[in-house]
Amino acid sequence: MVTEQIVESVAVAPANNLSEILKSLVDSYSDRDNVAPANIYEDKKIFPSFRSGPLQEYRDKASFCYKRLNVLLEGEDHIRLKHKIWQWMEKHPDFQREPEAPNLERTRELANKRHHLLWEQKFFDVNEYLNTPYLMLAFGQAIFSYDFSFSVKFSLSNGMFPSTLLTNGTGRLGKYIAKISDDRILGAYALTEIAHGTNANGMRTRATYDVKSQEFIIHTPDFEAAKCWVGNLGKTCTHAIVYAQLYVPDDKHQGLNAFLVPIRDELTLLPLPGVTVGDLGEKIGLNGIDNGFVMFNQYRIPKANLLSKTGDIDAQGNYNSPIKDQRKRLGASLGALSTGRVNITAITYVALSKAVCIATRYSASRRQFGPPDSNEEWPVIEYQSQQYRLMPHLTAVIALRVVSLWIGKKNMDMMMRGMMGEDTSREGMEIHAISSALKPYATWAARDGIQECREACGGHGYLRASGLGDLRNDNDANCTYEGENNTLIQQASNWLISLRRNNANFVDASPLETVAFLKDMNVILQTRGQEQNAGQALDVHNLLKALNWLTAWSLDTAVKRFEQLQSAGKDAFETRNNIQVFAAQKLSIIYAERTSYYVFYKFVTNLPASPEQQVLLKVLSFYGANLIIKYSSLFYQGGYFLNSSQIELYQQGILGLLSVLKNEAIALVDAIAPTDFILNSPLGMSDGNVYHHLQRAIVSTPGVYERPYWWRDVTYKTYLERAKL
Amino acid sequence: MVTEQIVESVAVAPANNLSEILKSLVDSYSDRDNVAPANIYEDKKIFPSFRSGPLQEYRDKASFCYKRLNVLLEGEDHIRLKHKIWQWMEKHPDFQREPEAPNLERTRELANKRHHLLWEQKFFDVNEYLNTPYLMLAFGQAIFSYDFSFSVKFSLSNGMFPSTLLTNGTGRLGKYIAKISDDRILGAYALTEIAHGTNANGMRTRATYDVKSQEFIIHTPDFEAAKCWVGNLGKTCTHAIVYAQLYVPDDKHQGLNAFLVPIRDELTLLPLPGVTVGDLGEKIGLNGIDNGFVMFNQYRIPKANLLSKTGDIDAQGNYNSPIKDQRKRLGASLGALSTGRVNITAITYVALSKAVCIATRYSASRRQFGPPDSNEEWPVIEYQSQQYRLMPHLTAVIALRVVSLWIGKKNMDMMMRGMMGEDTSREGMEIHAISSALKPYATWAARDGIQECREACGGHGYLRASGLGDLRNDNDANCTYEGENNTLIQQASNWLISLRRNNANFVDASPLETVAFLKDMNVILQTRGQEQNAGQALDVHNLLKALNWLTAWSLDTAVKRFEQLQSAGKDAFETRNNIQVFAAQKLSIIYAERTSYYVFYKFVTNLPASPEQQVLLKVLSFYGANLIIKYSSLFYQGGYFLNSSQIELYQQGILGLLSVLKNEAIALVDAIAPTDFILNSPLGMSDGNVYHHLQRAIVSTPGVYERPYWWRDVTYKTYLERAKL
Repeated sequence: MVTEQIVESVAVAPANNLSEILKSLVDSYSDRDNVAPANIYEDKKIFPSFRSGPLQEYRDKASFCYKRLNVLLEGEDHIRLKHKIWQWMEKHPDFQREPEAPNLERTRELANKRHHLLWEQKFFDVNEYLNTPYLMLAFGQAIFSYDFSFSVKFSLSNGMFPSTLLTNGTGRLGKYIAKISDDRILGAYALTEIAHGTNANGMRTRATYDVKSQEFIIHTPDFEAAKCWVGNLGKTCTHAIVYAQLYVPDDKHQGLNAFLVPIRDELTLLPLPGVTVGDLGEKIGLNGIDNGFVMFNQYRIPKANLLSKTGDIDAQGNYNSPIKDQRKRLGASLGALSTGRVNITAITYVALSKAVCIATRYSASRRQFGPPDSNEEWPVIEYQSQQYRLMPHLTAVIALRVVSLWIGKKNMDMMMRGMMGEDTSREGMEIHAISSALKPYATWAARDGIQECREACGGHGYLRASGLGDLRNDNDANCTYEGENNTLIQQASNWLISLRRNNANFVDASPLETVAFLKDMNVILQTRGQEQNAGQALDVHNLLKALNWLTAWSLDTAVKRFEQLQSAGKDAFETRNNIQVFAAQKLSIIYAERTSYYVFYKFVTNLPASPEQQVLLKVLSFYGANLIIKYSSLFYQGGYFLNSSQIELYQQGILGLLSVLKNEAIALVDAIAPTDFILNSPLGMSDGNVYHHLQRAIVSTPGVYERPYWWRDVTYKTYLERAKL
Repeated sequence: MVTEQIVESVAVAPANNLSEILKSLVDSYSDRDNVAPANIYEDKKIFPSFRSGPLQEYRDKASFCYKRLNVLLEGEDHIRLKHKIWQWMEKHPDFQREPEAPNLERTRELANKRHHLLWEQKFFDVNEYLNTPYLMLAFGQAIFSYDFSFSVKFSLSNGMFPSTLLTNGTGRLGKYIAKISDDRILGAYALTEIAHGTNANGMRTRATYDVKSQEFIIHTPDFEAAKCWVGNLGKTCTHAIVYAQLYVPDDKHQGLNAFLVPIRDELTLLPLPGVTVGDLGEKIGLNGIDNGFVMFNQYRIPKANLLSKTGDIDAQGNYNSPIKDQRKRLGASLGALSTGRVNITAITYVALSKAVCIATRYSASRRQFGPPDSNEEWPVIEYQSQQYRLMPHLTAVIALRVVSLWIGKKNMDMMMRGMMGEDTSREGMEIHAISSALKPYATWAARDGIQECREACGGHGYLRASGLGDLRNDNDANCTYEGENNTLIQQASNWLISLRRNNANFVDASPLETVAFLKDMNVILQTRGQEQNAGQALDVHNLLKALNWLTAWSLDTAVKRFEQLQSAGKDAFETRNNIQVFAAQKLSIIYAERTSYYVFYKFVTNLPASPEQQVLLKVLSFYGANLIIKYSSLFYQGGYFLNSSQIELYQQGILGLLSVLKNEAIALVDAIAPTDFILNSPLGMSDGNVYHHLQRAIVSTPGVYERPYWWRDVTYKTYLERAKL
């Protein structure tokens, strides 16, 4: 359109005015672009008009406005900030996508550069953070949506590293905080060792205090005790927070403590003497992060480098801690990991939502087969089997949108109030428990959902350009780090079981309301499914009732199992181990799912009546009914279902909703989709012109039409002659 | 030892005899190596003594001999051939593993070279093939165990391409068979188009017969009709079998036909004029295969190049086919895809068995935590939760070993008998149906099993060096090609439903016995679970009874659903679509699982009594009981379970078996593991010295300790200054 205006202007203007005209036109064009309309719905950079294409048909069918749904789900400030960041990236030369997969070295180089560029840009200053801390969630969503690797590097360097220094260190390490803020040093967090991950107490790196020199001697006894999996350590960090067993004079052991340890020269990036630091090599995903390993050989660091908030030594090496219990001391020191779990829940949302957008749009664009009496093939989303591949993940990811923002905000509230000196131990415990269940639930939901989306896109989904492989590979790490899922869920079930066994007050224990409903546990255990038809089965209140029963029954079953084993003379260690399969593991995941349903339910039922609320009620119904189907065996086993065919009501309900939600699906993904530049998949572009984008992606790959340099190996095969000799 | 002998000999021999002594020693050494002992159990190259390490404890605990189990599962000839190939690879310079992941170009180069080297080696000639066709299964297992990409290239080039020419072509294309045999041309199989995969009839590539020149004019109307996903097409093939819609004079359409189409010059490998051929680029896995796309621009090929077995034209363009029905003609032409499905079932075994070996050995080597009163940490396989991560996949993969060999042999039998002129249409139909269910079942089992193994190895499993990521990524394609799983399973359920609806004789329809038992379907539907305790629940006969019921009930349910929809006035197209979710899809997978259980059951119960039979009975029990747990909801819904707690018998049984099978697990994986060179994972080596091998893998990666070339981007960050300007 601008071009047309230029042409028109040129036609009537004298030739010497051309440059001025061009300038004013360009200016007016830029102005129009740069001033964001006050009304977010009119902001074309946030909500552009979609180009016409195969998805229009489904957009027309939707019963609601995707823009309003987006605003309801995330809020205007959240949306504005994420789009501001995305627009910056889209224009920045160093954020342009490469036409082919960069190699490992280049992947690292890009992640490093982008991390520093983003930091320099300061989208968020400390004041803004204090005023609107929740916008950190939008910030995180924005950067992870672009790429996981550089975002993890950013979070490690500017989040986890300084916040561990701040919360575990004392004033004497303040200069490092300033250096981090100025981007002059780069940190890493070194806890895991080659032979010890989950069992932190088993770490074998030693820090021996030398009274004479007033230094700690950090030493790695062997490769099994090498710190490993440390992000930023492989190639880039200058410093690391290293967890080591502290030994003071007389070989007295003072438990695992954290130390600030210089690793590489701050200017040359060469490793310091006594430090053997290397790269862990290629991983399944997240290859922009240089995970590394390090071994220390009698390596000396100043006494001041002990992170001393939870314990310090005097010049003679006498240890003093405000926390007497060594286990609790370690717990306090590892507190940063809890926020990590909350954040992972949020980033699984990012991964799964991108995958669901790609697969849903592809399914509405791709046509295959059709009724025998028709010449038109059907979009594959019209097939029931395809609908049931997509809808469980589409509804789950919308629930995850709500839940991840909820837990993120609750966690921030708690941290803010903690900083003000408030006692937040009840919230702390509940967030520890629910995040230990939500993180595994969400990462597994993303794992399975991304995989289904990959398959739902058929062969084209197997192209690296589809983006689905990278989403899966990057998300995969979420199942393992910051608490391996199977280990982590034990934290949640341990808490629930102990609450029940100790006859605790569930309301007191639950400022976040994740278990408050269990105050009526004995009554809930008596409830039964009274639903008579699919409509009643899909009712969102009835679904909550059923999920409440499921949680109560699972807890009751796990407690009974626990007590059986105890009565049989098993010790606590064996008992905890032997209630996992068929009891405690399920309990934890059900706890996460019931919480997700409950938080989503509260959110939807509290919305003002609107078409957006109506569609969310259907999404909520589907999400809940699908959980009932998933756990139908337990509803039978526990006697909640009153007759053998009760499951069929939920199945009928789901089938009915499939045929309704398939017409809402495109608008639903529009409400959660990032921009095309950010989504970056030819299969999921907002215009749905799949084959056009696919062609572009394929033919723009360097060397696409080139004969390989080893062509003689195909036709002449002289190496075969050699082999014969 | 040889060195010692040399030293001893040298000590007593005059100096001038040294070279002779050396020669004879080397000769005797080689002889000892090359003459395989007649008794396979004494062949140290097949069954080496394991180096001592952390796995010894579990090997000592096993109740059976892993060597005998291996021989029972695969047979001596099978084992000898696969080891012969593995030994050849282990010594060959071009089969050595690279210390870091090669880039795309290098990956392709290696796959190409290895494919030709293997062909040149002729492990298997035509006579051997005719005498012992089953050894093809060992051959396939051997090469896929090394690497999927080069093996797929090998199979495409030397299996699918020539066999399609042979079975669909006639004598006039014989010279091409000779050229393939001499490795002078390289073929591809081009069916899929950008916009059409599953719906073969929708293909839009045209072949128009030109009477004047007696040529076909092959033409691609647009990019959507470009042939794509064609293996070997991207960089290497000289010819392709191209499926195109045949038009003869008067624009008469004769359906989809196959043509032999020259693509590139046989010596220079440059594309021929009129052919635009390119590479599809990087994929999620299988990157050694150069999948490509091609567009033809009015490209002429001789009349003789029509594959004319199912139909031919005369000089004037009159079409004549021995098969009058166009759909059946296409079915006959696409016959090669059915064997493809059988073969995929076998290669999923390879992928899953490697993953299970890695994760099981790792779990017995890796220690973490332990009872509070002990200083020793426990191997993680001692934890119930870890056992239940591994055992479902370990037992399933042993079942898959038996089943994939069974279906492979049945398919070969049928092909051989077909070549002899026998009518094999009943076997053909049953193999089509069961392979359409087994391939999805097996590929999904591998998908989920490999993923669980990845997670069960924690962070170290996330290293690319663990091999688990590549196994997952390579296997992933199996879910999609040769019939997308969700589409494919409809073939199986359609067959089962039509048998039941037509009151067919299940015994007649089932020479392979996959549905013969359904002759008593109405009686089976009346059976109920009578098990009173865990022992009865685990009984392998009772488990078969339960799975028979499950299959019958699922079929009955799907048929009822089908008839309901028909009564409601739905046409066949809609009816088939709308019975998929909750009915037909489950039916197909249950059919595959019941068949797997049944084939495994027959195998185990027919073995002579031995410790190996005893352990296999436990494996079979676990496999069956775990299926009951998977489908417990259906056992409730269909009324098979007589009381709500019946599921607990199976759970108790499973928990009991876990504690028994964990002591057998290492010997079980020894019985299916390839050699260490082939397995190629530091986490799964046979000595279990995980950290030693991990260290080796990490520190031998080029550049592990090197400063990156972009180090100034970390410390100086001059690009930030530029950004500020």
